[in-house]
Amino acid sequence: MASPIYLGVIGVGGVGSAFLNQLARLPNAPQLILLARSTQTLLSPTPAYSPSIPATSDWQAAVSTPSLTKSGALSADEIASYLSAAPGRSILVDNTSDPALAASYPAFLRRGISIVTPNKKGFSSDLALWKDIFASAATGNALVYHESTVGAGLPVISTLRDLVATGDEVTRIEGVFSGTLSFLFNTFAPSGASSSAKWSDVVSQAKELGYTEPDPRDDLNGMDVARKLTILARIAGLDVQAPDSFPIESLIPDELASLPSTADGIAQFMTRLPEFDGQMAAIKEGAEKAGKVVRYVGSVDVGKKEVRVGLQQFDRDSAIAGLKGSDNIINFYTKRYGGNPLIVQGAGAGGDVTAMGVSADLIKVVQRLS
Amino acid sequence: MASPIYLGVIGVGGVGSAFLNQLARLPNAPQLILLARSTQTLLSPTPAYSPSIPATSDWQAAVSTPSLTKSGALSADEIASYLSAAPGRSILVDNTSDPALAASYPAFLRRGISIVTPNKKGFSSDLALWKDIFASAATGNALVYHESTVGAGLPVISTLRDLVATGDEVTRIEGVFSGTLSFLFNTFAPSGASSSAKWSDVVSQAKELGYTEPDPRDDLNGMDVARKLTILARIAGLDVQAPDSFPIESLIPDELASLPSTADGIAQFMTRLPEFDGQMAAIKEGAEKAGKVVRYVGSVDVGKKEVRVGLQQFDRDSAIAGLKGSDNIINFYTKRYGGNPLIVQGAGAGGDVTAMGVSADLIKVVQRLS
Repeated sequence: MASPIYLGVIGVGGVGSAFLNQLARLPNAPQLILLARSTQTLLSPTPAYSPSIPATSDWQAAVSTPSLTKSGALSADEIASYLSAAPGRSILVDNTSDPALAASYPAFLRRGISIVTPNKKGFSSDLALWKDIFASAATGNALVYHESTVGAGLPVISTLRDLVATGDEVTRIEGVFSGTLSFLFNTFAPSGASSSAKWSDVVSQAKELGYTEPDPRDDLNGMDVARKLTILARIAGLDVQAPDSFPIESLIPDELASLPSTADGIAQFMTRLPEFDGQMAAIKEGAEKAGKVVRYVGSVDVGKKEVRVGLQQFDRDSAIAGLKGSDNIINFYTKRYGGNPLIVQGAGAGGDVTAMGVSADLIKVVQRLS
Repeated sequence: MASPIYLGVIGVGGVGSAFLNQLARLPNAPQLILLARSTQTLLSPTPAYSPSIPATSDWQAAVSTPSLTKSGALSADEIASYLSAAPGRSILVDNTSDPALAASYPAFLRRGISIVTPNKKGFSSDLALWKDIFASAATGNALVYHESTVGAGLPVISTLRDLVATGDEVTRIEGVFSGTLSFLFNTFAPSGASSSAKWSDVVSQAKELGYTEPDPRDDLNGMDVARKLTILARIAGLDVQAPDSFPIESLIPDELASLPSTADGIAQFMTRLPEFDGQMAAIKEGAEKAGKVVRYVGSVDVGKKEVRVGLQQFDRDSAIAGLKGSDNIINFYTKRYGGNPLIVQGAGAGGDVTAMGVSADLIKVVQRLS
């Protein structure tokens, strides 16, 4: 009989709720002993670390479980102390996008607490944090899994790690890494037909469908894609210093970049965006004249040590041009795979599929700790 | 310090040699204590199980290592006894396609020996063997990894297992699962242009390029694809009794099926194949009239509990129609992924990429046993 494994979960938003629903149905799930949202924390009482918290996305149901300890927000240090004192190995699932929590991963790991997370911040910020995370994991004999930091539940991180670990030479990685930008360009410049859609109308439509961040500039600035490329480039062996230490093409017109990120500023941005439709139409038509379509892609050239994020033209019959809806596509070019890349494609955003990557990682960590 | 893990490897053919080359470069590789080809076996001497055998695809170099025990072929039982008496956990890598060895997996597993293999036979034969393998693994607290049984090193088995384990509902799996048949149809009926190639010429070309089995009928009968579909269907939850318990469309003309599988029989087959070019041309033209192309695919409809292997028509702009060279493509349709499937695509055959799946599995098994 394996000794029990203990679990702390932070974040009960879209991904967090979907994860808790999946956790509730996992066989051999670890014991949930800490569940935190921004202002509240539920804990199994010490020293027994029992009863455990029911895995449910219904916070009220969790709170009403008898005999749990309720608290306000705890510091990362308090959470690490609580988890490391549990009578067995413990795992922290970080379902937030909090950079401060990510910065504390090394402290968790050094204390033997494994980390599973879709939070990109720890892996795509300063290179020093990346190195500290993996060195601390080795020191603490703890594990770090973060499949959902790129392409949500798609097997991207695991595939790249397998290629590298088995000695393949990854030469280039190229793809569409943002569901939002995928939708925008698949709609604005479809590969199969010509479209007269105006750029600003497509952005409005995506915003109304909930495909963009509340402030669409958080998608259009390319930073989310740049963070994903930073992670992949580092796994492929490049020492990328920071997520902005390579060329990132922003789709925000300079004139609109400084509008505040308030409701009013966002409204002004959307109102003024049509002024720039001509610029985007010219880019689209330039590609069409070459018989191609324009797409927003990220790429890593491992040999040249180059990472790039921005617009690029693709043949109409290429896999990248033919992408549908808000799908992601990731092409791995390697020595073993030769001319045709290993391709992974599908939905790269959304609570359920992001949570799936987290749950699958959790299963693997539990298997390794058991 | 983790206790050492011991490794036995059977088979030094194309995949076996590529695997040994990868093994030689793995950090933290387990200690190779048994290396067998059809008529010879090298063993680390008992009771120390030391020195270990150098991981090399050069059999003569391995044989010339001092102090190793040399033997003829050992029975599965003898190999299991040797490995299970090693002073630590042990793993058997089966790089053969031997059905007899596969039938003995349960005996290895019950004795605590984990199995890593690209050999499809154990997982695609009678359902009773499949069940015995996984029940024996549970009994022996041993692991079974077989990524390379479908799509070689492509992340197919692992992705499907993750979908199932995290509670997604896989509704349909569809794809091109044979590199040989992929090449044949991508050449015979390309999606982007019309081709006047004769079927028999395309088969001859593939045979000369080494893309077919020595007897091309071993590809054309569809059984290799049927075995892969059997494995996927079982992981998806269907109790498929045997690899021939569902419709399999053979591309071998009835009149040529009974020719012997000798050099002479194969030569007769190739000589007479042009007689049937008209039949294949009619199939191709039928698809063209519908604006489509024909492809040889396998599919699992989980809800209807239907597995099918054979020819089907696809839209010219579909991912299956647009496949290049000898690539495989696997589409997973699931409840979470919705209308657009999760797609994995790339080379699905070849020594290096098949061995990569084996090496990546071995790394995971070592991590779990450590």
